[in-house]
Amino acid sequence: MTDDSDTPETKGILFFDVNETLLDTASLKEYAGKRLANRQDLTDVWFTSLLHYSLVETVTGSWHRFGDIAEAVLEMTAERYGISLAESDEPLSAVLASLPAHPDVARGLSALSQQGFTLVALTNSSAELAESQLRSACIDGYFSKTLSVEELCKYKPDLSVYNWAVHLMGRPASECMLIAAHGWDVGGAKLAGMKTAFIARKGQTLYPLAPKPDFVARDIFALSQIINSLTGENI
Amino acid sequence: MTDDSDTPETKGILFFDVNETLLDTASLKEYAGKRLANRQDLTDVWFTSLLHYSLVETVTGSWHRFGDIAEAVLEMTAERYGISLAESDEPLSAVLASLPAHPDVARGLSALSQQGFTLVALTNSSAELAESQLRSACIDGYFSKTLSVEELCKYKPDLSVYNWAVHLMGRPASECMLIAAHGWDVGGAKLAGMKTAFIARKGQTLYPLAPKPDFVARDIFALSQIINSLTGENI
Repeated sequence: MTDDSDTPETKGILFFDVNETLLDTASLKEYAGKRLANRQDLTDVWFTSLLHYSLVETVTGSWHRFGDIAEAVLEMTAERYGISLAESDEPLSAVLASLPAHPDVARGLSALSQQGFTLVALTNSSAELAESQLRSACIDGYFSKTLSVEELCKYKPDLSVYNWAVHLMGRPASECMLIAAHGWDVGGAKLAGMKTAFIARKGQTLYPLAPKPDFVARDIFALSQIINSLTGENI
Repeated sequence: MTDDSDTPETKGILFFDVNETLLDTASLKEYAGKRLANRQDLTDVWFTSLLHYSLVETVTGSWHRFGDIAEAVLEMTAERYGISLAESDEPLSAVLASLPAHPDVARGLSALSQQGFTLVALTNSSAELAESQLRSACIDGYFSKTLSVEELCKYKPDLSVYNWAVHLMGRPASECMLIAAHGWDVGGAKLAGMKTAFIARKGQTLYPLAPKPDFVARDIFALSQIINSLTGENI
């Protein structure tokens, strides 16, 4: 659509959420549970609070990095349940930086790349953290760009994040797809005019009040097969 | 400060959050737990998800009433944990509408009113729900106005909510105080230039990355005593 696009031969742009969608956060939750006096049952409320507070910052015009909010919310969760937060030799940011990829991810990214798509990471992690995460999980090579919300100081699913990412890639939103394991992320991208694919990772659900995604797949490799089976040229 | 204020003789405007701050949500959480296959341990993650999704709607330019988001997120929570959501003869909105006030509330509101303050409810509940809630809890008589975020289609702590509420009362933000049992609510109001008081209800904590509140009290009556002990004329 635009002549000055830096990705003229792509079939379309696939934006990937990183945490939980590509990377397995089990070790992160295990770490949080250990620091919360071994209360593994509290890790979901901690992670949900982390997502809540990332948006609390967004709607109040504040900004802290995702890892810093995660640590602050860990303190709050401990206080909320009357637990002493345990110190750890390993900082939370180090655990975040070394999450492994889900087993389907490298195969799925490879297939989508070979099908002619341009792959871009679009994450709530800070730019530095995101680079470390993708490198550590050995999947950095598949991505043309890594885009962090840090650039805008607003967290997904704020619509300005999707609009910015789409604009940056020089393609109309209709030629872009957001792929995520979160109902709130695919819901936001859809409202920004993008196509969307929901990855139904364990424990992840769609938000009933958001528009439906274009695709639902159990993992990234399954998504690559669904997209490959489409008869049209583009997504 | 303004000549056309409709509350010229007030010592200042006190804005009160409603759910959890004035009203005891224990019966709401008990109800949610029952519908979640008696998993009372999941009610905190449900309520936190409800707060998260209220902001997901805000940052994506969407709008549903608080009670409708609560029901949708209840469905998501059931699906997330592989539970069949139980039907109930009583709808969630009816439970929300009939929450009792905490035991300190009527006494605290009465004292603050007698001290010369104007009391306003400022809530994420819809206008109709908020009116029902305050009436059912027998505390509606203390409030000059009940303001619902429904008017703006944005949830607290979006700064526009505080700015709108302050503007509506015709006083500068510095003569207004937001009183809430939520770290995110007092943090937002402070960033909007208001004074703030945090009510340290059981299980509620301040957000370490937000500006500190002006007052911390264990309940509303305790807050009325603290404010009454101040030597200055105004808050």
